[in-house]
Amino acid sequence: MTGRKRIEPPHRYRDNDKAVGVGNAFWDLSERNGLAGIVAELEDGVLRTVDTGHEFVNFTCCSYLDLDAHPAVIEGAVAAVRRFGVLDHCIPRSRVQIPALLELEASLGELFGAQAVSAISAGVASAGLLPLIASGHLGDGTRPLMVFDKNCHVSMAGAKAACADESEVVTGGHHDLDFLEDMCKRYERVCYVVDGADSLGGYAPVVELAKLQDAYDMLVYYDDSHSVSAYGERGVGYVRTHSPALDERTITVATLNKAFGTSGAMILLDGYPKHTLRVIERFAGALCYSQPVNTAAVGASLASAEIHRTEELRTLQARLRANIELFDRHVKTEQSGGAYPIRVVPMSDETVIDAGRRVFEAGFYVSPVFFPIVSRGTAGLRVMMRAGQTEEQIRRLCAVLIEVGAQAASQEAER
Amino acid sequence: MTGRKRIEPPHRYRDNDKAVGVGNAFWDLSERNGLAGIVAELEDGVLRTVDTGHEFVNFTCCSYLDLDAHPAVIEGAVAAVRRFGVLDHCIPRSRVQIPALLELEASLGELFGAQAVSAISAGVASAGLLPLIASGHLGDGTRPLMVFDKNCHVSMAGAKAACADESEVVTGGHHDLDFLEDMCKRYERVCYVVDGADSLGGYAPVVELAKLQDAYDMLVYYDDSHSVSAYGERGVGYVRTHSPALDERTITVATLNKAFGTSGAMILLDGYPKHTLRVIERFAGALCYSQPVNTAAVGASLASAEIHRTEELRTLQARLRANIELFDRHVKTEQSGGAYPIRVVPMSDETVIDAGRRVFEAGFYVSPVFFPIVSRGTAGLRVMMRAGQTEEQIRRLCAVLIEVGAQAASQEAER
Repeated sequence: MTGRKRIEPPHRYRDNDKAVGVGNAFWDLSERNGLAGIVAELEDGVLRTVDTGHEFVNFTCCSYLDLDAHPAVIEGAVAAVRRFGVLDHCIPRSRVQIPALLELEASLGELFGAQAVSAISAGVASAGLLPLIASGHLGDGTRPLMVFDKNCHVSMAGAKAACADESEVVTGGHHDLDFLEDMCKRYERVCYVVDGADSLGGYAPVVELAKLQDAYDMLVYYDDSHSVSAYGERGVGYVRTHSPALDERTITVATLNKAFGTSGAMILLDGYPKHTLRVIERFAGALCYSQPVNTAAVGASLASAEIHRTEELRTLQARLRANIELFDRHVKTEQSGGAYPIRVVPMSDETVIDAGRRVFEAGFYVSPVFFPIVSRGTAGLRVMMRAGQTEEQIRRLCAVLIEVGAQAASQEAER
Repeated sequence: MTGRKRIEPPHRYRDNDKAVGVGNAFWDLSERNGLAGIVAELEDGVLRTVDTGHEFVNFTCCSYLDLDAHPAVIEGAVAAVRRFGVLDHCIPRSRVQIPALLELEASLGELFGAQAVSAISAGVASAGLLPLIASGHLGDGTRPLMVFDKNCHVSMAGAKAACADESEVVTGGHHDLDFLEDMCKRYERVCYVVDGADSLGGYAPVVELAKLQDAYDMLVYYDDSHSVSAYGERGVGYVRTHSPALDERTITVATLNKAFGTSGAMILLDGYPKHTLRVIERFAGALCYSQPVNTAAVGASLASAEIHRTEELRTLQARLRANIELFDRHVKTEQSGGAYPIRVVPMSDETVIDAGRRVFEAGFYVSPVFFPIVSRGTAGLRVMMRAGQTEEQIRRLCAVLIEVGAQAASQEAER
């Protein structure tokens, strides 16, 4: 073996040694304490572990409106599989396609008031689109400097290395508008890559970003997966509710796998000519060469879109809001008072795993986050609210959380 | 705008200018001639265009055994959606999962005699796994030189930039064993990335590669999507039928979206300890953080796996073989006599589009490939055989192909 070359990796944009080194210990400890690696059957909104039959309510599920289990969504999936007679007709859609994806895109486009392009997942959409944006093919031909927000989801951050081969890539501070403006002054064009709604709570500063978009023709690429359906009129999400720059400079991707309740993802665009949409279909990575959303997911999504057009969506959104408010009346978190369905209940690095275990034993799954997954001193139990959780379940969860060390909300707020 | 920096891209591993420049003209010309952008309803194996009602048989569909439309597969999808009551229960499987993926992986593992890990697509599997292999996390900790075969599918080649940040990447000649051996002598370890079965016909030299694997502990990463189900006992595919190195040094991914007839993909492994499988689940990119195979695809796949265990699979494989042989008895191609279901019927760059159009008008879709998608002088009509095509359809297609300029097979072979 002597004399054979040992490789030193550049680690400019990623580092698996660090990711696995940090993350694996976290997962192993979680799993040893029964808080990861859980296998459970789902029935009427309750999970029952396959090994011991332990029943629990999931408070870490992103189906914020419980549309995933909506009978119309399930029957929509069944009807489409039967109607099309295949899950997919395997040939690139740029050659021949059955009408499934076109029907899905027409419906999503009408619902969200945008041009919609489907993708099998938001990760696949971002991995395909971001390098195409970096090479100037979605803008005016100018290669933008790609500024990735340091907190942006890994499904976007994972595209850094590919983007760096088509343009230049930098990582900017979280929502650092000054840095962005500085880059806009120094580069011909800039594209900022950021979550519309963060997975640990919080929204992007869409109004301030629109000012930079106006002043410098900046592109913004949002992943709004955590707010679509749960937020806004017809569930258009945070970005499309509040951004004043809904034109070619704003590109939004969102999963259909969270509050929308189905499978797949969508890219939402405004003002692009047909030939650009064709370029996306043909050259945005896996959108061109790999399998599309299957017909079951298309049918479920068409049914979910129909629900989004009715009063039922407002009812579900209102129930979600009421559940969030109920939780906030009992347990104090930094997120208290916000519209976002995620709360992180502070715990110490030493107690968080034990607390999570006790909450699980009491019949609720909440997910512990702790060092080294988050910085020291910011550990906690992540709680996700859904429209379908009952008042009784939320009250009981809050009581248990307080027993294991959560801070109670003030009596005044409790009423 | 003056003074603002214009970016010069490095283009070490990818070049969208070139890809779009070359490819878009190809697609535009195909579409103008009615050979791309076709929308058609599928019924009883025949497609009917939505705009004009033109009927045609698809000879460019990768569902080589027609399992995609098998009633048991469709009903498997329906049953699973109803049984699980959701398309997905949205939470990372490393935390909590319903048993769907585990049942799928147990079935695929038993069927293919391997450890099976599911993925939403082969592209997602490769994009996640290849960087983890590059960083040494699937081997003995040594970072291998990543040698990508120059013809390897874009779903693998697309991972070059990410791999280059975790290790070193080179592109080797097509099946260039000498180059591989040279690299094995120069580097501590090598991983060769190649298609098991090429999308334009042909198989990897698995026996010769196994010799290098034995001599130098070389890893080989195969995408065997085009041969799984269609080839081998129980449809295990070309690699698992012929490679003498089915152990940790051989990693195979394959889609379930082609001959297997469903959606999703699988990673097939041998001899890895449980903790390595956990590392894959947790850190192989989107396998950890993004949506999984949905329950409709799980149910369809379980049904397809059942068919693979019966005599019916052999019958379908035999029908496919008979159809390939029938085609070869009429039309001469370079692939004549091979087991592979793809044929490229040679045409000139000048005539291929018109020939494709005439074949389509006669009721058959075959896909034209021509410069600049392939080199000058190698243009042709790509034909894919399936088990479900009738003798009559194949005979008629062959007659039309000969009318538009294909070379007839010799009379002797015709019998």
